[in-house]
Amino acid sequence: MTRPNIDASKLTTTLTQTPKELLDEKELKFGKYFTDHMLCIKYTEENGWEAPEIKPYGPLAIDPAAFVLNYSVETFEGTKAYRAADGTINLFRPDMNLKRLQRSAHRIMLPEFDEEQLLECIKELVKVDQRFVPKEHGYSMYIRPNFIGTEPNLNLQYSREALLYVYLSPVGPYFPRTVKLFANAKEARAWPGGVGNFKLGGNYAPAMRPAMEVVSKGYDQILWLLGDDHYVTEVGTMNFFIFWVNSEGEKELVTAPLDGIILPGVTRDSLLSLARQWGEFKVSERKVTMPEVVAALEEGRMLEAFGAGTACVICSVSEVLYEGRQLAIPVDPANPDAVFGPMTKRLRDELLDIQYAKTPSPWTIPIQDNN
Amino acid sequence: MTRPNIDASKLTTTLTQTPKELLDEKELKFGKYFTDHMLCIKYTEENGWEAPEIKPYGPLAIDPAAFVLNYSVETFEGTKAYRAADGTINLFRPDMNLKRLQRSAHRIMLPEFDEEQLLECIKELVKVDQRFVPKEHGYSMYIRPNFIGTEPNLNLQYSREALLYVYLSPVGPYFPRTVKLFANAKEARAWPGGVGNFKLGGNYAPAMRPAMEVVSKGYDQILWLLGDDHYVTEVGTMNFFIFWVNSEGEKELVTAPLDGIILPGVTRDSLLSLARQWGEFKVSERKVTMPEVVAALEEGRMLEAFGAGTACVICSVSEVLYEGRQLAIPVDPANPDAVFGPMTKRLRDELLDIQYAKTPSPWTIPIQDNN
Repeated sequence: MTRPNIDASKLTTTLTQTPKELLDEKELKFGKYFTDHMLCIKYTEENGWEAPEIKPYGPLAIDPAAFVLNYSVETFEGTKAYRAADGTINLFRPDMNLKRLQRSAHRIMLPEFDEEQLLECIKELVKVDQRFVPKEHGYSMYIRPNFIGTEPNLNLQYSREALLYVYLSPVGPYFPRTVKLFANAKEARAWPGGVGNFKLGGNYAPAMRPAMEVVSKGYDQILWLLGDDHYVTEVGTMNFFIFWVNSEGEKELVTAPLDGIILPGVTRDSLLSLARQWGEFKVSERKVTMPEVVAALEEGRMLEAFGAGTACVICSVSEVLYEGRQLAIPVDPANPDAVFGPMTKRLRDELLDIQYAKTPSPWTIPIQDNN
Repeated sequence: MTRPNIDASKLTTTLTQTPKELLDEKELKFGKYFTDHMLCIKYTEENGWEAPEIKPYGPLAIDPAAFVLNYSVETFEGTKAYRAADGTINLFRPDMNLKRLQRSAHRIMLPEFDEEQLLECIKELVKVDQRFVPKEHGYSMYIRPNFIGTEPNLNLQYSREALLYVYLSPVGPYFPRTVKLFANAKEARAWPGGVGNFKLGGNYAPAMRPAMEVVSKGYDQILWLLGDDHYVTEVGTMNFFIFWVNSEGEKELVTAPLDGIILPGVTRDSLLSLARQWGEFKVSERKVTMPEVVAALEEGRMLEAFGAGTACVICSVSEVLYEGRQLAIPVDPANPDAVFGPMTKRLRDELLDIQYAKTPSPWTIPIQDNN
């Protein structure tokens, strides 16, 4: 007998009796303010997926011995809904996030789920809380699906019960300025044979203390280097891109390859696609080492560098501290006040125009309002 | 102003109205059955540690956006209470576990706590639920402290709210037989610059799928190898020991060093101490590679091998599958039915005699019963 999968047609909605007041959009900070409702879908090995529920946002009742609290059986995603100039709301490539959630869940023995049915439920949640989707350009509704193992059992097998839940946080622009990175070769975020390419909670907790240490030194995030050759992998919460004239004399946009070490970012994939469509320079996914970056800077071949991720979209990097040396990264030599390099800004503008549905694209998934 | 630390004198106890029936001790399985009560101690950055509470075991109310559910801000410990032949109850080196908890908590930005005051609260919890401490030799009460970040905030900084809670699970013997290990060099449990030496939840979830795969092939646990030289690090849930005649012709008990890769086990430390007290052979903490193990087997120098941890105590290893070869590890050549090698059994018996307070030792911490 096949156990039931997620079925959006069985979704029930219980509305809150105490709706929140909307915050002034200028006061929105990332991930501190949540909407009225959340989506919860329970799973048991015995009965499969239960009917999805939208209900008031509030605490989850979790057994003290649940897998999620003991062994970090948890994976999450981050995607966004954007309000277009005409007021309609669109998701951006949510299928990519749900595919990655599926892969992450599989890695830690969480059950398979129907991605399309989950997407229908998420659309419904955004519709229910649509009054929270910000109106201003650059603002958006951050969507956080979490998938956790809830069986109370200290045996290190796998969780036979699970909860997939989704909640929403309206957010403002993440990094409205350039960022300074601290290159870290001491700790390792990920490594060959590890799980750096999955969005598991367990990849994040160990990064917090190193991140807070670089913040206390005046840097924004860590640039994670790996191995003795100082392979440049990714930034704290972003993939890392370099735009340069490479050692062969070619103009090139380059980022780390999907080799199991780095997170396969949706923004990363989107920017590579856009740049490849332009066809104006080489676009590469390959390993670059920190000594190569230093050489490019010394030889005047570095043009721009930036981080990219769903939360921040894109932000230009203006400095990397590496082995005690403050390496200045060009942003826009023609404009000392620029917060984006010219190529970076062009990529960012094209991406935002798609996300805010100004440029038609198959990446844009509208949320139909039936009301 | 100093914020309050944990204060055992402020402990309050609320007893359950629905006490559980005791299970037949023969039915006890590891980590599936819990006692009537748990200990909960809340922390906020603003007000420090609140008064500890013992209350009925039951679900925790956790915000969907809590650090523990998103970024695996969670660490745990495992220690045990043993009932002596005279009925008294003793803890075994709980200070070692609480020190390790402190180190793990520090690594993921959880707040400092007073280890001695926490220990007093744990003793009180065991006293409250003392009827659950099994009477039979080999059985014990497993004690699980969990420490989790509870602040609802998706920003990757650190959790300004936390919960330290402790619960109890009466358990039977874990592995009453020899075990077969599957040597894994494909995935990596831990790596230089990682967090393998801390007891973080995030170290466990990624090990589940590889572990289930070896179980499906008829093996009990993974023997984790690291790097191109196949450094023998540890077993799924245990430290790994070899007793052999080494390549220098010396009789030696050897286990991996505390080099940041392996978990610093309390059982590991205790066994090294006992063997060093004997003074009968060399006792080493140093790196051993799998090719060295193969050579020792081929040259007839391997005497015994075993895993050691709080949950299992000690269990002899009878086989390692390595690169497709089934390597038979000697257990007790004089006794084909033995489940422990002679030296392994001697270590185990001495350790159990201390844990069950048959042999007096400063490692044994009695729980005074005031009733």
